[in-house]
Amino acid sequence: MTNAVKIGSVLIGGNNPVAVQSMTNIKTQNYTQVIEQILALEQEGCDIVRVAVKDEEDALAIKHIKKAITIPLVADIHFDYNLAILSVENGVDKVRINPGNIGLEQNIKKVADCLKANNIPVRVGANTGSIEKEFLSKYGKNEISLCESALKDVAIFEKYGVKDIVISAKASDTLLTVKAYRYLASKTNYPLHIGVTEAGTYENGIIKSSVGIGALLVDGIGDTLRVSLTASPIFEPMIGRKILRAVGRETNFVEVISCPTCGRTEYDCIGLANKVEKLVKNIKKPLKIAVMGCVVNGPGEAKDCDLGIAGSKDFCVIFKGETVVKKVPFNQAEEEFIKEIESIAK
Amino acid sequence: MTNAVKIGSVLIGGNNPVAVQSMTNIKTQNYTQVIEQILALEQEGCDIVRVAVKDEEDALAIKHIKKAITIPLVADIHFDYNLAILSVENGVDKVRINPGNIGLEQNIKKVADCLKANNIPVRVGANTGSIEKEFLSKYGKNEISLCESALKDVAIFEKYGVKDIVISAKASDTLLTVKAYRYLASKTNYPLHIGVTEAGTYENGIIKSSVGIGALLVDGIGDTLRVSLTASPIFEPMIGRKILRAVGRETNFVEVISCPTCGRTEYDCIGLANKVEKLVKNIKKPLKIAVMGCVVNGPGEAKDCDLGIAGSKDFCVIFKGETVVKKVPFNQAEEEFIKEIESIAK
Repeated sequence: MTNAVKIGSVLIGGNNPVAVQSMTNIKTQNYTQVIEQILALEQEGCDIVRVAVKDEEDALAIKHIKKAITIPLVADIHFDYNLAILSVENGVDKVRINPGNIGLEQNIKKVADCLKANNIPVRVGANTGSIEKEFLSKYGKNEISLCESALKDVAIFEKYGVKDIVISAKASDTLLTVKAYRYLASKTNYPLHIGVTEAGTYENGIIKSSVGIGALLVDGIGDTLRVSLTASPIFEPMIGRKILRAVGRETNFVEVISCPTCGRTEYDCIGLANKVEKLVKNIKKPLKIAVMGCVVNGPGEAKDCDLGIAGSKDFCVIFKGETVVKKVPFNQAEEEFIKEIESIAK
Repeated sequence: MTNAVKIGSVLIGGNNPVAVQSMTNIKTQNYTQVIEQILALEQEGCDIVRVAVKDEEDALAIKHIKKAITIPLVADIHFDYNLAILSVENGVDKVRINPGNIGLEQNIKKVADCLKANNIPVRVGANTGSIEKEFLSKYGKNEISLCESALKDVAIFEKYGVKDIVISAKASDTLLTVKAYRYLASKTNYPLHIGVTEAGTYENGIIKSSVGIGALLVDGIGDTLRVSLTASPIFEPMIGRKILRAVGRETNFVEVISCPTCGRTEYDCIGLANKVEKLVKNIKKPLKIAVMGCVVNGPGEAKDCDLGIAGSKDFCVIFKGETVVKKVPFNQAEEEFIKEIESIAK
């Protein structure tokens, strides 16, 4: 099991739930808009949010942002170690740093001293672009060089007494990402921040993130995650949550299972499934609803459901578990099924 | 390694590429429309297609469909073993059967005899709705009962001399699906048809399928796959291909890696990434193109790319590998980058 690390009010690692992260994409110094975006991200299920800190103005904006939000705030730092310190002084809850581009060890020591003094955790965030030459030439570009590079950076923070460390080692190559985190999980007890970096545009990004993050979570690897999409960040938290749901790590929601339809389908199963999904989107109850095309995959496969519907020759069958509760003509199927959903959702 | 099985002109199992499947959702007897849908599915990357055979008319339509398509055709059979035999007699390339709902062993024997005589492979397709009572009471509802149920059915086909067998054991629970195929892979050398069943509507189905299929492929499990979406089947093959790409099992395409953008982004990186993706969609070359917001994740992380672009303070940098080939103002970035893409794609 990984160690637990506290990021503001959120604990990650150990037996804590996997926290969902996202990152704003507005210049941080424009803090009014940034705050608006963070509040929207929180609505969509974001547990921890990160902002890029590119210059002093960005770091100073942290004070304003912190006053207006409740979820923990992380400062993303590259190149300039002074910005890490300034971010902590302005109240940030965690610093993400890529030591590979911070330079001299004495600068990392200064960041470490500041983190310790303020009890602020750090994420050591390596990626394939920042693998140290030493490891590149020893191992080539693979999960070992990526992770050993990250672990060397971790050792520097350890040397200067920092204990609250989170590690990430991301690649845009999904398979390499999976291998890297498996390697890290075998070598360290620090909590792991997982994700596929530069995963791409909306749909491609969802697929690569689901494959990579999903494959890791299936084996219990990953303490906090971020889905990266080249799209508005507003989509990221919910996709992250849906990945958690797929691997059984989030259960307090209504799962809609629905069949792909085939030549057997006699009613508008696709249309109904989409309507049902919208209807139950905000219900926080561990329920399972099945929308099935026909009796082949209907009651049989959906036995475990709290409620289900399946098409038959001239009518639909509504069932609860293995019990048929109603037979309704196709043209009343939607209305009747929605009534039943409303009744069990109460 | 799994055994190779021939389905029409396509070999699955062994070292063969993972074949992508889909299923039509039009009544099979309406074969003119079914043919149209199959040709469209093939265009989208479908290697093998399945049709539901619900009655005699559906089975007879197979003859017409076979004449008009080139990819292998699979008949999906439930309840009535006669339809399996009639489908084979009408030229189908593979039969998918769920022995759990076929009934008497003597009926399965008749199907087996027909398959053997015609050299036609079978997929034994179990799912959580068809677990035999014997295993349910012994193990409960889990991957063991699901797979042992499937393997018992496989043993019946073996007993009657059928050698070309493919197995599936699907569940709508993604984690259970992964566990089931891992179990099967440890117990048998038959090729495995993988997928998450009743995965849900478009986006949810993509996420569950990517997690489940992806987690298996990462570990080398799976010889053919189907993404099930409660949506038009036309989307299924390409999502399947994208999962294969994510795990490095398909490489002859242009990969667009693009960053999620953050407070550092100074130009319309999201817009450009989407345009680039459309532009390269049909290029069959193993190229990697990076569309990056800024210099932090730009040239550094995209070193391995054939071509990349990253935003800087007042201009964009276009690079090939580690070499900067051009600096262009933001308003010319798109035009110049597309020129470069066209030149490397030739």
